Amino acid sequence: MRDVAIIGVGANPKWGELWGQSLRDLFVEAALAAVDDAGVDHVDDMYVGCMSSGLFAAQEHIGSLLADYLGQPHLPATRVETACASGGAAVKMAAIEVASGHADIVLAGGVEKMTDVGGGDATFALGSAADAEYECYHGATFPGLYAMIARAHMDRYGTTPEMLAQVSVKNHGNGALNPMAQYPFEISVEQVLNSVMIADPLHILDCSPITDGAAAAILCPLEMAAKLSKKTPIRIAGFGQATDSIQLAQREDITWLTSTAEAAARAFAMAGTTIKDVDLCEVHDCFTIAEICVVEALGLVEKGKGGEATMAGRTARDGDIPVNVSGGLKAKGHPVGATGVVQVMEVVKQLRGEAGERQIEGAKRGLTQNMGGSGGSAVVHILEVA
Amino acid sequence: MRDVAIIGVGANPKWGELWGQSLRDLFVEAALAAVDDAGVDHVDDMYVGCMSSGLFAAQEHIGSLLADYLGQPHLPATRVETACASGGAAVKMAAIEVASGHADIVLAGGVEKMTDVGGGDATFALGSAADAEYECYHGATFPGLYAMIARAHMDRYGTTPEMLAQVSVKNHGNGALNPMAQYPFEISVEQVLNSVMIADPLHILDCSPITDGAAAAILCPLEMAAKLSKKTPIRIAGFGQATDSIQLAQREDITWLTSTAEAAARAFAMAGTTIKDVDLCEVHDCFTIAEICVVEALGLVEKGKGGEATMAGRTARDGDIPVNVSGGLKAKGHPVGATGVVQVMEVVKQLRGEAGERQIEGAKRGLTQNMGGSGGSAVVHILEVA
Repeated sequence: MRDVAIIGVGANPKWGELWGQSLRDLFVEAALAAVDDAGVDHVDDMYVGCMSSGLFAAQEHIGSLLADYLGQPHLPATRVETACASGGAAVKMAAIEVASGHADIVLAGGVEKMTDVGGGDATFALGSAADAEYECYHGATFPGLYAMIARAHMDRYGTTPEMLAQVSVKNHGNGALNPMAQYPFEISVEQVLNSVMIADPLHILDCSPITDGAAAAILCPLEMAAKLSKKTPIRIAGFGQATDSIQLAQREDITWLTSTAEAAARAFAMAGTTIKDVDLCEVHDCFTIAEICVVEALGLVEKGKGGEATMAGRTARDGDIPVNVSGGLKAKGHPVGATGVVQVMEVVKQLRGEAGERQIEGAKRGLTQNMGGSGGSAVVHILEVA
Repeated sequence: MRDVAIIGVGANPKWGELWGQSLRDLFVEAALAAVDDAGVDHVDDMYVGCMSSGLFAAQEHIGSLLADYLGQPHLPATRVETACASGGAAVKMAAIEVASGHADIVLAGGVEKMTDVGGGDATFALGSAADAEYECYHGATFPGLYAMIARAHMDRYGTTPEMLAQVSVKNHGNGALNPMAQYPFEISVEQVLNSVMIADPLHILDCSPITDGAAAAILCPLEMAAKLSKKTPIRIAGFGQATDSIQLAQREDITWLTSTAEAAARAFAMAGTTIKDVDLCEVHDCFTIAEICVVEALGLVEKGKGGEATMAGRTARDGDIPVNVSGGLKAKGHPVGATGVVQVMEVVKQLRGEAGERQIEGAKRGLTQNMGGSGGSAVVHILEVA
């Protein structure tokens, strides 16, 4: 397998409720930004992560659609889907194709247009990432599923609503420094705890928002990077993907994210490194409890200690293991198919030293963890300065 | 890149309106049949081609769901989607991963549960493979789009309704010999021409049906095939994928399937062969006119001569270039995400000499052509006896 590098990244200037942009507009803007960042004049193949353009926008076949609108009507282009981990899967597919030698320059993108839903609603569309027959049809959509995880975590490990809230407070603090964030402002623990209850113990400020957005990355063989682009190449040292029982009810321990632990183990084995060698992590904080479970599954902290570690500031921007320096899904927004790609974009910018006010000084290696459903799938990437 | 072989194939025993089987049941049956055919005891990764489990079954995230129901809850598993070419794309993805060296045994499957649509209808779901904003919302769904292609072909090349009907007659004749076919019976040109008109000049017997079904294939490195399986390995000599403007209105010539021509050119370049070296083809006859355009785009016959060649029996089972010996989409059924995989299954069975009454004697090399939308995307595979 060839070594693979990322030489370009791009996204819409600001994520949010982008009423003036359709799915195709969002994607083309992000893809062209990545092409421009890399400085390449063409791509050989394209993967688009998107969870549900069908339910959100009555549009499947978006590989073809987006290649066409990108002005590349004969480009091979495929949509990949693993619910909210679709973006991560798109980056993995692109990495495998470049590694294989079948293509040299591959675009991995992600997009979701969530605010302008025709013929349904966003909660129904998102619910399709859970088990439709055994969860959704009985009323269990994601706030409820993650609330059950939170309750179990509180019961078993003494995690408190304040600890959950602190995840949100930390990520909003970081997001306030990120120009693309949907909600770029600080909030307090009190504000989180006083915000409307969605599914006890999760308040609305424990939940990531509904967002329109897209992101893209350009991959090529590491050995060609210097010739193709002026940007510092960022090497994809490892990637791993894993699934878990899609139904929460079928898992042995709902507080433990096996898919994340397995995906990380595969990525670290490929990279020949461990979590101790990682300088920053972008992880899937779709709900505050998710980030707490993820930092445990990644081995950043001991099992059950995610809440305490957050309260102690260990995952803060100036902590020993910065998590979601970008603002995370909570502040930056969560256009589901794009999230896994923008996580990669943030780590690339950090490793290049281009992260402005939120720069982690001297960062040499970063990790992204992108998750589908209530942990039914996960994709982990380990990126490093080449 | 490593050479890649197919060592197992499987599908449901019979496709059709399978009211007793859900999406997960259909897929697991096909996947286990392929695993059993190969004789392997595990797989390392899985790709599932599926056009719209969201719109057909309110269920996304089916990679995770199906890995779970297959009894492999931690298996990496990703859905790939390029409308009706999703199955072909799944096989391509699996081939790239095996070729790369990242995984050894990879399952490529396809599934669609189309008859039990909740909260919508099948025509709406299928229409999402066209441009929602510029075609579907204005009433142009696929029978109408292909009818326009047929009218243009008739006008330009003198193709007749009888020529279109003959495609259906030929494919039903082949399908009568295929135990898995949804409609395994012969029909006559007269029956086609007297059947109800759907979108002039396409009668209902010019159209492939709505079908429930799944299919799967097991891929591995050619060099490991003999060790892993007792089955004759079938080598994937080449594959190619391409897109075209998704909107019919934006193409220079709607009778010419550029995506198919480009995908085939790439596959042949990779295989180092030409269409003249191919003994049989499985192609995407979603409508009779589609098969006529496809045999032209593949270079099997001269541009404009697809209808005449069909009438002359050249594409018949005993013709010089047998096309759709399986019965094609028309007789076998068209569960959209599964079609590209079952095309591969038919060619594998033919090359192994296991095709029973429809066996093409001495077949050494076969081609599959799987198409999305009105030709917005295409995936071509070239398979040969190793």
